[in-house]
Amino acid sequence: MAKHFDRELEKLKKKILSLSALVEERVYLAIKAIESRDPDLAERIIRSDYEIDETEVEVEEECLKILALYQPVAVDLRLIVTVIKINNDLERIGDEAVNIAERIQSIAKRSTYSFHFDYAEMAEIAAAMLKQSLDALVNLDIDTAFRVLTLDDEVDDIQSKAYSQIKAAMGEHPEEMTYLINLYLISRHLERIADHATNIAEEVIYLIEGEIVRHGNYL
Amino acid sequence: MAKHFDRELEKLKKKILSLSALVEERVYLAIKAIESRDPDLAERIIRSDYEIDETEVEVEEECLKILALYQPVAVDLRLIVTVIKINNDLERIGDEAVNIAERIQSIAKRSTYSFHFDYAEMAEIAAAMLKQSLDALVNLDIDTAFRVLTLDDEVDDIQSKAYSQIKAAMGEHPEEMTYLINLYLISRHLERIADHATNIAEEVIYLIEGEIVRHGNYL
Repeated sequence: MAKHFDRELEKLKKKILSLSALVEERVYLAIKAIESRDPDLAERIIRSDYEIDETEVEVEEECLKILALYQPVAVDLRLIVTVIKINNDLERIGDEAVNIAERIQSIAKRSTYSFHFDYAEMAEIAAAMLKQSLDALVNLDIDTAFRVLTLDDEVDDIQSKAYSQIKAAMGEHPEEMTYLINLYLISRHLERIADHATNIAEEVIYLIEGEIVRHGNYL
Repeated sequence: MAKHFDRELEKLKKKILSLSALVEERVYLAIKAIESRDPDLAERIIRSDYEIDETEVEVEEECLKILALYQPVAVDLRLIVTVIKINNDLERIGDEAVNIAERIQSIAKRSTYSFHFDYAEMAEIAAAMLKQSLDALVNLDIDTAFRVLTLDDEVDDIQSKAYSQIKAAMGEHPEEMTYLINLYLISRHLERIADHATNIAEEVIYLIEGEIVRHGNYL
């Protein structure tokens, strides 16, 4: 019985890691699409989202199966519940990559605009947060998880810079309003990716410490 | 043992219902704040969000306790996992009410603007979706849950109307850009409330049918 349980747990870990890899790849592609404004790349991101959706459903079914068959307790139970929640965050990060891709498709139609906001730094931090939150999960590394929480403020800072610059550009170039709104929405989607990475980091801390650190209780 | 379990389950149901009531109230207040642009009401919504956060943590701890102590299977297990997820959606709806309140605080500073978008219908549908999704949960009523799914399209339609009208107003009144961006963001926060209500309805369908209907599989 214990052997079967361990085997199921290994299978579950593999599955959530393969979902993580899928989602990370999709975020990197979305960042590449922001830089290149390549509508074909955007289309690829949108079309392949079903893979993430399917894997998410598989992970959840696997969790339910393990809960029902083995009725784990203590650390094992907490692991399964954590996986259920991280699974949810990963799927939503995939959705944000799709949202970015859809914005890029609108932007790509025209090639030059009078204003540009460089999202490279913001995207880099958001992607690093995702990577580190997943590393923290794999290695059960609480320091890395806490580092993710501090990075979130940097993303918020850049987001607020993007907001004020784009707002000013909207006043100066009303003829480019659609483009500027899309440019602004990209910052919000990047911010939401960072938020979900923060959720994952908080879940990892909870898994390790056994305490719920959501809602700023860790400060 | 079975008696204890039933008692715990009743306690959990009561707790998730009291969270539902809190969240519903907060959404109604946010809608009232959109209409009245009352900064004091907005402040009240923001300041009381901790109640929702605390109740969410209590619900999750209760779920974990039940899973650990009673190791439920079949329908009972599915119920607990569903509650864990709905709990998450409810807390995020509370966050969206706070987001709306923050937008209202920015808007309220000036009293008259040249453009207005009436969110009454959109807000009414979003609130109805939330109410119906929770009714569906309480009564395990699959028809009501499916009705929620169809309402989501109406919200999306109004959101896209708001977008094009506000975009046009941005071009005509660049001096009111901050206001117009905030006005636009309100539509997005209402849309996200509708999204979370849709998630809850999908979870209820899953609970009743035992099948995962996310990602449009119900169509």
